[in-house]
Amino acid sequence: MAGSQAPSIERLIDCFNRLPGIGKKTAQRLAYYVLSMPEEDALKFASAITDAHKKIHRCKKCCNLTDDELCPICRNAKRDESIICVVEEPKDVVALEKTQEYSALYHVLHGVISPLNGIGPDQLTIRELVKRVNDDNVKEVIMATNATAEGETTAVYISRLLKPLGVKVTRLAYGIPVGGDLEYADEVTLVRALEGRSEI
Amino acid sequence: MAGSQAPSIERLIDCFNRLPGIGKKTAQRLAYYVLSMPEEDALKFASAITDAHKKIHRCKKCCNLTDDELCPICRNAKRDESIICVVEEPKDVVALEKTQEYSALYHVLHGVISPLNGIGPDQLTIRELVKRVNDDNVKEVIMATNATAEGETTAVYISRLLKPLGVKVTRLAYGIPVGGDLEYADEVTLVRALEGRSEI
Repeated sequence: MAGSQAPSIERLIDCFNRLPGIGKKTAQRLAYYVLSMPEEDALKFASAITDAHKKIHRCKKCCNLTDDELCPICRNAKRDESIICVVEEPKDVVALEKTQEYSALYHVLHGVISPLNGIGPDQLTIRELVKRVNDDNVKEVIMATNATAEGETTAVYISRLLKPLGVKVTRLAYGIPVGGDLEYADEVTLVRALEGRSEI
Repeated sequence: MAGSQAPSIERLIDCFNRLPGIGKKTAQRLAYYVLSMPEEDALKFASAITDAHKKIHRCKKCCNLTDDELCPICRNAKRDESIICVVEEPKDVVALEKTQEYSALYHVLHGVISPLNGIGPDQLTIRELVKRVNDDNVKEVIMATNATAEGETTAVYISRLLKPLGVKVTRLAYGIPVGGDLEYADEVTLVRALEGRSEI
């Protein structure tokens, strides 16, 4: 097998192989597919990678990734500026935007507090969040970190920083996923769902 | 959702989304992963794509993809030049090389005869194969196209062209699961298929 493929093909396979969830065989399939694409499309793909890296930086306000000074959401005058939803990653913003039910602003932490991985509050954008709550007319901060131990810790840490500033801090509800079977929900989720029950 | 992401991120997601087997959500995950990579690695990825496209062309002899005039297999003097194994795609060569049981040459067709997709014998490298059998001292041609209807048709078509030239034409044995792709067969199955090859 070694030496049966051209070095530049092997380099391309290796690049795909480094992506998360892409194994050796998928990497090979993708590399040969890229080779079979018209040259124009392949060059477009390559420049999309370099472009994104050169143009993309953090939004001055919410720290989401953008290619302008402010991201499209922060630029949008129709957005309610009194509420900030705090998420871990840019893709969480995409997930929440898909609901089309949230029309206020976001704040992207770019991670969670994780002492095991050497990530403390200073590596996240918590300082920027506190500054926003101080400077802008923010009434509510919704913590929407993941429902993991680290996401919880981060949410609690941030809420303790923000409460003295007189802002309301809330948390996404826990419960059974819509469409999910009670049978497959874990105990902790069921306990939280019971605690958070509401009148019909 | 529209407008919530920067255009250059959306372009990158779109590029990943065009790859086979990569859906919208995986494309998004990969795009954000590429953005989180060190700039050096991202540039390496981009140049691996353009490099491969610029450098890679067909081997003058077997039509496999290579960045030299001859591919590493055709260049290898230890290879038995009297046997040619005919495959559909470059990745089939990789699969057969993995068995470490085949030490002769290949011929890559770059497709199969498929009237429904408008692919006739002239779009494949059949002419080059006939020329090799005519010019070189070839004793046997092993048809190793996929065990699909189109692969079969192509094998039969080629065997009819080659037999008048006095060459032995054989076919991989049905150790390959019928209807399956060569790329996904395991090594042992491929070895059995090589050993049990029969004359068409």
